[in-house]
Amino acid sequence: MAKGRIAEILRTGKPGEAVTVQGWVRTKRELKEFTFVEVNDGSCMANLQVVLNPDLTDYAAILRQLNTGASVEVTGEIVSSPAKGQRIELKADTVQVYGEADPQTYVLQKKRHSFEFLRTIAHLRSRTNTYGAVFRVRNACAAAVHQFFQERGFLWIHTPIITASDCEGAGELFSVTSLDLNHLPLTETKTVDFSQDFFGKRAFLTVSGQLEAEIMALAFGNVYTFGPTFRAENSNTSRHLAEFWMIEPEMAFCDLDGNMDLAEAFLKHIFKSVLEQCPEDLEFFNQRIDNSVLATADNIINNEFERITYTEAIALLEKSDRTFEYPVSWGLDLQSEHERYLAEELFKKPVIVTDYPREIKAFYMRQNDDEKTVRAMDVLAPKVGEIIGGSQREERLDILQKRMEALQINPDELWWYLDLRRYGTVPHAGFGLGFERVVQFMTGMANIRDVIPFPRAPQTIDF
Amino acid sequence: MAKGRIAEILRTGKPGEAVTVQGWVRTKRELKEFTFVEVNDGSCMANLQVVLNPDLTDYAAILRQLNTGASVEVTGEIVSSPAKGQRIELKADTVQVYGEADPQTYVLQKKRHSFEFLRTIAHLRSRTNTYGAVFRVRNACAAAVHQFFQERGFLWIHTPIITASDCEGAGELFSVTSLDLNHLPLTETKTVDFSQDFFGKRAFLTVSGQLEAEIMALAFGNVYTFGPTFRAENSNTSRHLAEFWMIEPEMAFCDLDGNMDLAEAFLKHIFKSVLEQCPEDLEFFNQRIDNSVLATADNIINNEFERITYTEAIALLEKSDRTFEYPVSWGLDLQSEHERYLAEELFKKPVIVTDYPREIKAFYMRQNDDEKTVRAMDVLAPKVGEIIGGSQREERLDILQKRMEALQINPDELWWYLDLRRYGTVPHAGFGLGFERVVQFMTGMANIRDVIPFPRAPQTIDF
Repeated sequence: MAKGRIAEILRTGKPGEAVTVQGWVRTKRELKEFTFVEVNDGSCMANLQVVLNPDLTDYAAILRQLNTGASVEVTGEIVSSPAKGQRIELKADTVQVYGEADPQTYVLQKKRHSFEFLRTIAHLRSRTNTYGAVFRVRNACAAAVHQFFQERGFLWIHTPIITASDCEGAGELFSVTSLDLNHLPLTETKTVDFSQDFFGKRAFLTVSGQLEAEIMALAFGNVYTFGPTFRAENSNTSRHLAEFWMIEPEMAFCDLDGNMDLAEAFLKHIFKSVLEQCPEDLEFFNQRIDNSVLATADNIINNEFERITYTEAIALLEKSDRTFEYPVSWGLDLQSEHERYLAEELFKKPVIVTDYPREIKAFYMRQNDDEKTVRAMDVLAPKVGEIIGGSQREERLDILQKRMEALQINPDELWWYLDLRRYGTVPHAGFGLGFERVVQFMTGMANIRDVIPFPRAPQTIDF
Repeated sequence: MAKGRIAEILRTGKPGEAVTVQGWVRTKRELKEFTFVEVNDGSCMANLQVVLNPDLTDYAAILRQLNTGASVEVTGEIVSSPAKGQRIELKADTVQVYGEADPQTYVLQKKRHSFEFLRTIAHLRSRTNTYGAVFRVRNACAAAVHQFFQERGFLWIHTPIITASDCEGAGELFSVTSLDLNHLPLTETKTVDFSQDFFGKRAFLTVSGQLEAEIMALAFGNVYTFGPTFRAENSNTSRHLAEFWMIEPEMAFCDLDGNMDLAEAFLKHIFKSVLEQCPEDLEFFNQRIDNSVLATADNIINNEFERITYTEAIALLEKSDRTFEYPVSWGLDLQSEHERYLAEELFKKPVIVTDYPREIKAFYMRQNDDEKTVRAMDVLAPKVGEIIGGSQREERLDILQKRMEALQINPDELWWYLDLRRYGTVPHAGFGLGFERVVQFMTGMANIRDVIPFPRAPQTIDF
């Protein structure tokens, strides 16, 4: 009597086989002759139809318990299903109910709930079709990330979450402290005495592992991070989270061309892999959430990404007949509408824009000889705009030092980052992508809070 | 002219092949006839020996640059090596030096440094043999974790890092805030007004993802976390970090026996997998760090773990002729010396101790009918003591509520956790293990700060 997951049984189960399944009741349909119960165990979108005959021991008592949400173990025999759309069903011999779910108070009944409401019951929403599919896709996508890098010999490295560095400039920081906030120790000048804090100085939650990833790339060649990062920005939007997962590969002996090649291969790989792993779930998203989901995946997988410079992009935008809300002019950053115009309308496929103006990019990006642009790259995708941001890093000590000076970045705080340029420096490059953005992109889910199990955002910290 | 990683070239390179390697100089040995340069690229412990002939263009100038730590690209031909201990070497045709390393100031010269000193230069220590091996093993171990669970259909889930919950009781918490610590808003009663903070209430760094993992297990069946967790404990020891990575599987429809089976299979898998992936690195640890490393791995892989109850363990300890520092008595927790005695001396293999006294274990563990013990389990390993802690969870609403009441845990804060027992509750179980402890165990590294790239501990937050 093999215990089986429903995904496996639906795929390979043969009539005549005896199996035991364990899961939760989705619906119950009582007929005169027998009762149909749809059971789901989270292994796939589809339910297994269980058929209960009235000659079952305790039939009536069991039926009363088998409401939506109840947990059951059913042992029986696989039989061919006369019903449409399913190859097999399970004829129950014994049914054990573990836990009931009172239909009067259990909210996940057959009626549809808004995503907004379901966010307030994030401890139950994963039991619905949509969130079940979201988190299976999320897992498949995360597994594909590791597979991609491990197969290529990249080391997964864990960069610190708590950091003393506040100079990366990627956004607002959360403070971390073990001091009693109601009794903060003060210095003579009446400011907080952080020397008494856990780390002996101010500490924050990281906004990026890149600088530390560079350390590791200069020892191991190719590395990647995959961990949580934080922004204390008060943006209550459908695209921002205070806590999100980021992936940041970093490669030594690599220039921007190699970086673009990796980014393109990476995106193609994860889309292909998730299509293979979760075809049923993606089909669901395409039907119910966003009917461009499958076409978008196809677009990513089967097109060579366009590669243009920022200067070329500005020229293309300037000569377009579109009216944009935000101005287009060399030196200004591209806005989402510009990015989407390039990827969606003009090239109709992903576009990698390179060599942005130095003044709108981070201090660590490698300067071009024109002294105006840096070796930055953004990967723009149809539907979402920027999905990957990266650059070749400045590996030349003197140029990096001058740039930091110009931006008033204290070199004493980044002594170790400068050391990397002092001792065995090499051309190196890398990029970052927000994991939730990718899951949104793949599933078509409009709100980023719906692709992470327990979202953190302003005023949002439940569960 | 294929670019290759040194690990691959040393394994499969054939004399006559043309290759390009990129890496860092470890040592240089100038002879009259030619110069030997050992190059390492981080892909493996071994260096590739490069032979430079004086007829090379700019021979003298290049030699002056090729000091320890310099980064180079060498193109040449693989030739059979007449030297002992290496099958092949690389006869250089061209050498490009990317970045030099001044022998007067670059500290990683041939002499040995203490681990303590190397911690102060964590941005360079990964370039040494020991830390190179540590972080390759760490990556292989992390990859093995994902492989184990993914193959078994477990979903990797990301539980929140920032949490409002302070009731799990696993240790001291770090506070997270976006308030300006020098200008905290106060309520009328002159305490900090957290309603004005980012999340509208007090927030902390998580100590465990277990409670949220239970949510996901009750939707998907089998899940696991693998993410950072935090303790603000002021323990300056070789076994504690303020920030460390934890793995927490959680299984629905699973009791303690299934939990023990999983823990045993899991430990065996990761040891086997790392032995396969990093034999050279483990050999190094066995020779240079701890000569029991390979025997320990062998012991884990090839023994069936012993399973005894806490009550049996106490009886065994009481009748042993060993004098322990800490008392042995039913009701007291086992100390490291007791755990190691059981695993190392008595059974000489891993031991799983189950059914601990209720009073020394967490509120969520399933109570036994004796009303004295709970379905807890600790896996004790030779050399390290407890390496895994887990339990079957209390799935019965009334019993859980009573236990929380007895321990004065506010049910309003865990309303969602109680809901899991209200709607479709099932027997479920899981465990946690500290990832760094496993890497320590595998490598024999005595100090936990040496198995994470950038350790966080009291007064320790550099890089």
